Amino acid sequence: MRRIRITLSYDGTDFHGWQVQPGLPTVQQALEDVLVKLEGVPVSVAGSGRTDAGVHALAQVAAFTLTNRIPCDNLRRALNRSLPPSVRILSAQEAAPTFHPRFDATAKTYEYRIHRQEMLDPFRFRYVHHHPFALNEKLMSETARLFEGEHDFSAFAASDERDLLGHSKVRRIFSSQLHQVPEGLVYRVRGSGFLKHMVRNIVGFLIETGKGNMTPERLQRLLTPGCHEKAGFAAPAKGLFLISVDYSDTL
Amino acid sequence: MRRIRITLSYDGTDFHGWQVQPGLPTVQQALEDVLVKLEGVPVSVAGSGRTDAGVHALAQVAAFTLTNRIPCDNLRRALNRSLPPSVRILSAQEAAPTFHPRFDATAKTYEYRIHRQEMLDPFRFRYVHHHPFALNEKLMSETARLFEGEHDFSAFAASDERDLLGHSKVRRIFSSQLHQVPEGLVYRVRGSGFLKHMVRNIVGFLIETGKGNMTPERLQRLLTPGCHEKAGFAAPAKGLFLISVDYSDTL
Repeated sequence: MRRIRITLSYDGTDFHGWQVQPGLPTVQQALEDVLVKLEGVPVSVAGSGRTDAGVHALAQVAAFTLTNRIPCDNLRRALNRSLPPSVRILSAQEAAPTFHPRFDATAKTYEYRIHRQEMLDPFRFRYVHHHPFALNEKLMSETARLFEGEHDFSAFAASDERDLLGHSKVRRIFSSQLHQVPEGLVYRVRGSGFLKHMVRNIVGFLIETGKGNMTPERLQRLLTPGCHEKAGFAAPAKGLFLISVDYSDTL
Repeated sequence: MRRIRITLSYDGTDFHGWQVQPGLPTVQQALEDVLVKLEGVPVSVAGSGRTDAGVHALAQVAAFTLTNRIPCDNLRRALNRSLPPSVRILSAQEAAPTFHPRFDATAKTYEYRIHRQEMLDPFRFRYVHHHPFALNEKLMSETARLFEGEHDFSAFAASDERDLLGHSKVRRIFSSQLHQVPEGLVYRVRGSGFLKHMVRNIVGFLIETGKGNMTPERLQRLLTPGCHEKAGFAAPAKGLFLISVDYSDTL
């Protein structure tokens, strides 16, 4: 048996997220549908983490186990021939038998794109959140840095995940920065891991801060362990991209 | 009553083309749905020509008549607020009462994009025809020039239009060129007017020429008046963009 690690990019627009859901198109399902034909028996694909419906990926990492001895580059090409064009395998390589894309990940980087100009090109609406209204961008940038460090992110988790007892909601954020670009704002966050909806809730909080509805003081309270409040505003999925996943191995 | 001329861009992916079809989303319908709310009575929108399902436009031209006295730039903004993000009004201006975007057009330019690299970014599949296989690009470029001039394009019309008696199929092509770009090939054609499916049939013929299935001699025969053959290969709609429409007036 071989353990195969793949890096893939996808346009999340037409998928109900990463994870298999009966009767709905998902990225994991698209991969498993192609692999079962290659292998002859069902193949289970593990991802570095779920992405929500509408969220995109530039370099998601996934892995699966095969008996088929097809060389990795032929495997990559065969998968790309059978997958929908909204999913592309960028690379495929042999991995350690125990490699797991989620448990072995040491960091993940996400990017969120906010389009600030009045006019949004009709070919880009699937890939940005359009917000052409007034925002205090300086305060947003300052607030973005406050997410850095180790915090209890319960207030920024999806409600179904927030209420799971016994699961730590503490995550370490290595870097959290908002940058101005010609079209608007780009938020980039790198962390040890992320709770469900966490990045979208952070961006939603930053936008509300820019509108004057939230403050850095409120953020301090939300990040205090034992806080039972919720941040409350999730930015739309379509502006979010999973940029990369880091591993400590040299694969 | 005011005659308003608009220039608009759209992503044709989710539309069944330009022209109203009962029960289906079309660009003309999207415009008329918004205008009826503004005007209080149905408003008929005329375009410079139809585009097929999946065909995109960078600068389509359309016109309609209004009694509402909203200034043009406010009209543009109001339309953009109500239209789906896949349709954007680039400009709106007063036009002569008799202005008709189809009958007054003196030329139209279309572009067709062929992606030649093995890998196609998953965010671009809606906007190119992916053809990573061998093609004689030099012969394709030479053949593209043969469409220039005045010809009977019956062989390149959609079959339902080809069989309409009493409608001239003669069109003048001012320029027909295939260019190499880093990602592949771009075909650009400017003409007095185009029959239904004509550009896609021209590109399909060029691709078949590149594959060795068609020849310049065959093209000469297809362009001969009275030819009853068909070119026979329509390139996919998604690679096609209406680039611009020219008028002799100074509007």
